[in-house]
Amino acid sequence: MPYKVALLTVSDTAAADAKVDRSGPLLQDILAGQPSDFIITGASIVPDDKDQISKAVKDWITGGDVDWMITTGGTGFGVRDCTPEAIAPLIERPAPGLVHAMMSYSLIKTPLAALARPVAGTIGKTLIVTLPGSTKAVKENMELLLTNGLATHALDLITGGSGREVHA
Amino acid sequence: MPYKVALLTVSDTAAADAKVDRSGPLLQDILAGQPSDFIITGASIVPDDKDQISKAVKDWITGGDVDWMITTGGTGFGVRDCTPEAIAPLIERPAPGLVHAMMSYSLIKTPLAALARPVAGTIGKTLIVTLPGSTKAVKENMELLLTNGLATHALDLITGGSGREVHA
Amino acid sequence: MPYKVALLTVSDTAAADAKVDRSGPLLQDILAGQPSDFIITGASIVPDDKDQISKAVKDWITGGDVDWMITTGGTGFGVRDCTPEAIAPLIERPAPGLVHAMMSYSLIKTPLAALARPVAGTIGKTLIVTLPGSTKAVKENMELLLTNGLATHALDLITGGSGREVHA
Ligand code: NA
Repeated sequence: MPYKVALLTVSDTAAADAKVDRSGPLLQDILAGQPSDFIITGASIVPDDKDQISKAVKDWITGGDVDWMITTGGTGFGVRDCTPEAIAPLIERPAPGLVHAMMSYSLIKTPLAALARPVAGTIGKTLIVTLPGSTKAVKENMELLLTNGLATHALDLITGGSGREVHA
Repeated sequence: MPYKVALLTVSDTAAADAKVDRSGPLLQDILAGQPSDFIITGASIVPDDKDQISKAVKDWITGGDVDWMITTGGTGFGVRDCTPEAIAPLIERPAPGLVHAMMSYSLIKTPLAALARPVAGTIGKTLIVTLPGSTKAVKENMELLLTNGLATHALDLITGGSGREVHA
Repeated sequence: MPYKVALLTVSDTAAADAKVDRSGPLLQDILAGQPSDFIITGASIVPDDKDQISKAVKDWITGGDVDWMITTGGTGFGVRDCTPEAIAPLIERPAPGLVHAMMSYSLIKTPLAALARPVAGTIGKTLIVTLPGSTKAVKENMELLLTNGLATHALDLITGGSGREVHA
């Protein structure tokens, strides 16, 4: 049974004009390429506003129809970037290992990936990861998360699986 | 004078039947292999229960008979895993460099090490690190911590040493 | 227009006798080597005292004359080391990517760099990073931060730039 994924694009410009969102559609394409693992249950766009980001995440998770919440955008040093600050207070179990792996993988390819400020972890039985807004960063981070079944192993455990393979 | 080490295995199954604990005994073997550096002053097992983990750590540290507290287990994404959430609030000085080094070292050998959610730092004059529950992860992380005298240098400084070698 | 940089040396011994501060002057030399990018607007020394570190940082940032605040010292495991504990509560937007890049770069050259406990992030429109106290660590971390324009890209974004190059 595929895991339910919700996508949230965080961007002032994309919130004003959805056509300029390239990272949201790219995430949809990447996940659609793995139909036995993932089904997209929703995708929305909010501006770089802490309250709107926080509300969107809480609404999805309260709705219950999401195993994995992926955000793109708002993780950098721009004056409006506040995605980590909106989401970190909601995280119940931080996942520094995922953040580490994402950073290490990105830094090999892009030294300026050091400007990313990602957070990751669980909220209830939902995994949440925050990706940068650039399509290059989305592509690289999703490569890492899908390689070796990293995301599916995490999702299996979070949703109550034994994770036997992981701890073996 | 060897540093006093206390071991805490965190596992529902090991708490019900100590014979299934393989990581606790492995830690004892590894440390016993370095008798001039470390002496084990205690080893116990608690279930994956936030309050019991927190109480066990606080009891050890209040007791004063421990320089290094090592936990194994409860750091993953399983529904019961809550070791970092029990211990992070007790940490007075976080050690992100140790976490980074442990993650980097583990990821080279095991891509799924990204599912670990370790914390490390100091509580009073005690160093605390949380290792995953698998024997493979325990072995890899202890290799890293014992190589180059990493743990002993940290312990020397925490317990009041000059650390001259480190900053040289 | 060069970015305004303030330097803070954190060290009991240097606070008692400024002549023993080698890392502060080294930072000045490194930045003076890049005069079109940076201008040093101040440099001071405080002891390893949480309140004095915190006050020094707040005074600089309230004064408004600083885009980048660099501290050196007090980030290790010594009993008096408390720079991260003084500064972390002031950080509004943590920068785990910068911490990751600094740690990875240092660990390649110095395994005992794992004993560093750095923090980084933004306070208002100021970037703050905490470097270790050794001249070797200062040199290595500044190499990383100046390579590929890492610091200047971050500063451009924090102070309101478009960061077009970064997200391209
Ligand atoms: Na790394």
